[in-house]
Amino acid sequence: MTLVLSIEEQRELLDMASVFEALEILYREEAVGRAVTRPRSDVLVPNENGAYGLKSMDGVVPAFNVGVVRINSDVITWPTVRGAKRRVKVPAAPGDRWVGLILLFSMSTGEPLAIMPDGYVQRMRVGGTSGLGVKYLARQDAGVLGILGSGWQAGAQVLAACEARDVERVVVYSPNRENLLRFIQEIGREVKADVLAADSPEAVLGESDVVLCATNALQPIFDGSLLRPGQHLGCIKPCELDKTAYGRVDRLIIHSPDSTPNHVVMDEARVEQLAGDKGWSSDAGGVDWISTPTLSQLITGAAKGRGSDEEVTCFANNMGLGIQFAAVGAKLLELARDRGAGTELPTEWFTQNVHP
Amino acid sequence: MTLVLSIEEQRELLDMASVFEALEILYREEAVGRAVTRPRSDVLVPNENGAYGLKSMDGVVPAFNVGVVRINSDVITWPTVRGAKRRVKVPAAPGDRWVGLILLFSMSTGEPLAIMPDGYVQRMRVGGTSGLGVKYLARQDAGVLGILGSGWQAGAQVLAACEARDVERVVVYSPNRENLLRFIQEIGREVKADVLAADSPEAVLGESDVVLCATNALQPIFDGSLLRPGQHLGCIKPCELDKTAYGRVDRLIIHSPDSTPNHVVMDEARVEQLAGDKGWSSDAGGVDWISTPTLSQLITGAAKGRGSDEEVTCFANNMGLGIQFAAVGAKLLELARDRGAGTELPTEWFTQNVHP
Repeated sequence: MTLVLSIEEQRELLDMASVFEALEILYREEAVGRAVTRPRSDVLVPNENGAYGLKSMDGVVPAFNVGVVRINSDVITWPTVRGAKRRVKVPAAPGDRWVGLILLFSMSTGEPLAIMPDGYVQRMRVGGTSGLGVKYLARQDAGVLGILGSGWQAGAQVLAACEARDVERVVVYSPNRENLLRFIQEIGREVKADVLAADSPEAVLGESDVVLCATNALQPIFDGSLLRPGQHLGCIKPCELDKTAYGRVDRLIIHSPDSTPNHVVMDEARVEQLAGDKGWSSDAGGVDWISTPTLSQLITGAAKGRGSDEEVTCFANNMGLGIQFAAVGAKLLELARDRGAGTELPTEWFTQNVHP
Repeated sequence: MTLVLSIEEQRELLDMASVFEALEILYREEAVGRAVTRPRSDVLVPNENGAYGLKSMDGVVPAFNVGVVRINSDVITWPTVRGAKRRVKVPAAPGDRWVGLILLFSMSTGEPLAIMPDGYVQRMRVGGTSGLGVKYLARQDAGVLGILGSGWQAGAQVLAACEARDVERVVVYSPNRENLLRFIQEIGREVKADVLAADSPEAVLGESDVVLCATNALQPIFDGSLLRPGQHLGCIKPCELDKTAYGRVDRLIIHSPDSTPNHVVMDEARVEQLAGDKGWSSDAGGVDWISTPTLSQLITGAAKGRGSDEEVTCFANNMGLGIQFAAVGAKLLELARDRGAGTELPTEWFTQNVHP
């Protein structure tokens, strides 16, 4: 049977501890060359008001006996928010919904094991990966967590940091006050730590042992000179950090040397017109993405971690990989089978008696 | 709703005339830059007896208002057949089935319009594309069709050539006599022309106006010096033709300047050991894939077609593209909706209320 798991069912099954477990196995496998990924591609086709984007990435990990394809089918606009262009995915599918899918296949038989929406796993794998950065780089006694951003990704960053360290207090800043207050209420119910709103990025940087950035911004979100000795810094978009911040980091670890997706664009001039100069996320800080050590090397000890309590460490969770969906997706499937969760569809619908 | 269409339902709906229609629109759109493709990638992971292969390609075509992802999840072995290594896909999914999928998405809403096995469309788009090569390159009076090969792809080549020209006789050669006899019986029922078995490639080349190659061979399958003035030649794998054949061709048209997929391989040494030197299809004939005119240019008149009845023309249908699945898939979906065919699944299963 081929399993369909709703977002709600996925939430019930998969917690951050399970994500850490799956990802740690993955990065140890990756370190010995037993995980392969086809880097993300973004096809972008502009229309009158925005664009249609078709994004995909593939991965195969024998330790989980799965291959995975992750697809995003996005209706995109670039509105101007507080004076800056933002890239916004519009929930244009019936019922005001977004479209992203994970397809899991068996390496033994080729059959599709599961087809499911990707949003929850997406959030958990990004959070979990940043969380492993905290686990392997932050000071052991890190007790105050700072969060810049209050969107969907920010919540998973909190869960992950709290999984990695005994966090007592979380301080959060977002320029959108309404979102910020909703966020601290919601996430406050999910973790033991106190969750508080901060008035500025300066306030967050001033008191946090770990600072995680999780915004939609396409430019730096705080002044790097605010960084203090011993802090650990994390970002999902490398462009959230300024050159000063990269300059003050003593130990930088990245997720992947593939720093940009394979862009396939119809009518680039039109996309630039719609999106402004910063239509695509840009790199920042002059980081050498090719030779900087990776999380996989850090976890296995091939790359050195924090050298002292005074060092500033940074994990740039710079680029997602299909193999993360293989690992977390396989874990989710295992949990779903144990508990009989989800909707089973006939595998014959998605297989064939003719040679492909 | 998201439509699932079985291979049997697809066969009922889609004939070669419809495929020609969809593909001609596609290639005219491609010629003006209104069709974009993310080239095929092949992830290959060897195991004890063979390998697991995960292949994907994407395409977006505004004229059809769809984006498409086509996926193959293959269990592969390399047995030695009649002294030569062959790449064989094993039907290892439950019920001895193969796994390939087409996912069609709406460009307007992002929603998944259809998820279906790919084998029939795969065959029809390869055949249809070769057939357009015949339509635009073969002599108008071509009446005898030669086929080298008797497998799954060969049948669609016959249907397509018979769509393009008034074919009176089809002569087929295959080294596997049993397959050959079954093939001429089966295909004989599907076309008006007489379908006959030939004893050798020489016999096929000797009497055919159009010769189409559709084999699994990884090396040339006939002596190019057998080509005669006025013939049209077609191949799916460029390696089926020898250097002499390429040398005798007066006018060569290709499908795509992308001549090799993006290979992502785990343990290349092991793959070579399993597959032999020719594990991957190789190019042949020293063809300059980048600057040779394409089918799209031929159809729109940007590239010159046959110059005289004496010329030898050749269409090398060298590399599949995601946009072909967008075109043929959209046509199939249109036909299915007109007739209420297929199984409808709730689109909510494949969409989400969380940001991906």
